[in-house]
Amino acid sequence: MAEYDTVAIVGVGLIGGSIGLAVRERRLAGKVIGIGRRESSLDAAKKAGAIDVGTTELADGVADADLVVVSTPVDLVAKFVVEAAAVCRSGALLTDAGSTKEAIVATVDAQLAANKAEPRFVGSHPLAGDHRTGVTHARADLLAGRKVVVTPTAASDRGAVADVGAFWRALGAEVVEMRPAEHDAALAATSHLPHLVAAALAAATPAELLPLAASGWRDTTRIAGGDGELWRPIFATNRRYVLEALDRFENVASEIRAALEAGDDQLLLQVLEAAQHVKSQRDALGD
Amino acid sequence: MAEYDTVAIVGVGLIGGSIGLAVRERRLAGKVIGIGRRESSLDAAKKAGAIDVGTTELADGVADADLVVVSTPVDLVAKFVVEAAAVCRSGALLTDAGSTKEAIVATVDAQLAANKAEPRFVGSHPLAGDHRTGVTHARADLLAGRKVVVTPTAASDRGAVADVGAFWRALGAEVVEMRPAEHDAALAATSHLPHLVAAALAAATPAELLPLAASGWRDTTRIAGGDGELWRPIFATNRRYVLEALDRFENVASEIRAALEAGDDQLLLQVLEAAQHVKSQRDALGD
Repeated sequence: MAEYDTVAIVGVGLIGGSIGLAVRERRLAGKVIGIGRRESSLDAAKKAGAIDVGTTELADGVADADLVVVSTPVDLVAKFVVEAAAVCRSGALLTDAGSTKEAIVATVDAQLAANKAEPRFVGSHPLAGDHRTGVTHARADLLAGRKVVVTPTAASDRGAVADVGAFWRALGAEVVEMRPAEHDAALAATSHLPHLVAAALAAATPAELLPLAASGWRDTTRIAGGDGELWRPIFATNRRYVLEALDRFENVASEIRAALEAGDDQLLLQVLEAAQHVKSQRDALGD
Repeated sequence: MAEYDTVAIVGVGLIGGSIGLAVRERRLAGKVIGIGRRESSLDAAKKAGAIDVGTTELADGVADADLVVVSTPVDLVAKFVVEAAAVCRSGALLTDAGSTKEAIVATVDAQLAANKAEPRFVGSHPLAGDHRTGVTHARADLLAGRKVVVTPTAASDRGAVADVGAFWRALGAEVVEMRPAEHDAALAATSHLPHLVAAALAAATPAELLPLAASGWRDTTRIAGGDGELWRPIFATNRRYVLEALDRFENVASEIRAALEAGDDQLLLQVLEAAQHVKSQRDALGD
């Protein structure tokens, strides 16, 4: 029994493609339509089994959809949600998969209100990903067992909030509801700062030493292999909270520097053990 | 055909245990003797198949060895090498597995010269490990395909250098010869700094946000789960080069901060792309 007649996915990359694969594998929709900028990516998405049909025309793609998921780089999300809301059928549900939420939902809320459109949009962020991008790395189980943060606002239709949550749960995800700003502050610490730290570490490593960079270096810098163009708008839309998280990181880094400069092994050990403690707390939470 | 009659391993943890397993599996020695501080660890090492016999007495353990590998925390390595050299038989080869080299080999060279002992010691550092410690995580293939840096000095016997290299190669490792200081400067950037950065990131993450820490955070902080007591002496013996590596990291972090504060997305993108470039350079080198 399909939950939706037609699911439209705007942006069929790693996340959009994985959503499409999961929807099709779990038979949650009669049809999955992919909307993309290039025919070649739509062909790849069809070949990967992530969509039934593809189109480069947003209006055509979302016309019959009862669910639209916008899964583009974050700087394009609000624009596509608003455009889709203007042309999709009455009662259609809209959500997104962007890694920052406050800027997106504020823009969408304001535009939908200005357009007097039905507010059936609720922002989402699936906490799943990979440093590899593109539909060729999409997997039907990418979201299974993962968290999806859903970020309703005062403008959100409560029925739409429940429906969006039910959609992500149907893909095997666990749904967490947060305020958009609360989401952005949290993810600044748990995702955006780690990306910057990994990038700084990679960029600070002299090329001639790379043959001696073993598993520790590779783990620590793994996410720095991610596409800079995808990450740039994440930082651009979450600057304030990322700077706050960077402050906290730099405070600990300063303690480490002071301990090293003073040869204070006990102080250094305290920082290392505090870090170990946080690691065990996280490990205790499971996958 | 066993290369050695008796191999003695001082400190049978993750690395010492993996060496023992590999020596036994590859039948490189007639007998592997483990020397440890606690009977319980020696029993665990025997149970894991890493050693044939165990003893808590260094002099007993190394008396008949033709190869002694000291695989203790780095602050104990020089002491055990010197003690072993004083009691092991003439012509025995000695090496270690410490993560820093300059302090260790300088101390050992000086002490062996003072004791008028044969200089059959050559420092080594196998670039293999795990954030989990202890012989229960030891694996016969831990060193297979990994690099081992061998750090001879002017005092080193060239035959001993060749023999130590041949030993690591017999375990499947690739041997790289470096000066001790050159090793320490390189590993400060590729191993010790990543550990500090991972620890700072973990320690700077508010505990209440850990449920939202997904795979990116977990990869980036993985090595911070390592035993602080093992890492403390590594930093203590490599302070100068670690501080130099930290300087380079902080320079990049400052660029990132400036870009965020100024809202300069292009500058931020440049750093992210520089990091991506380093990651692909490393990936191109293979495992």
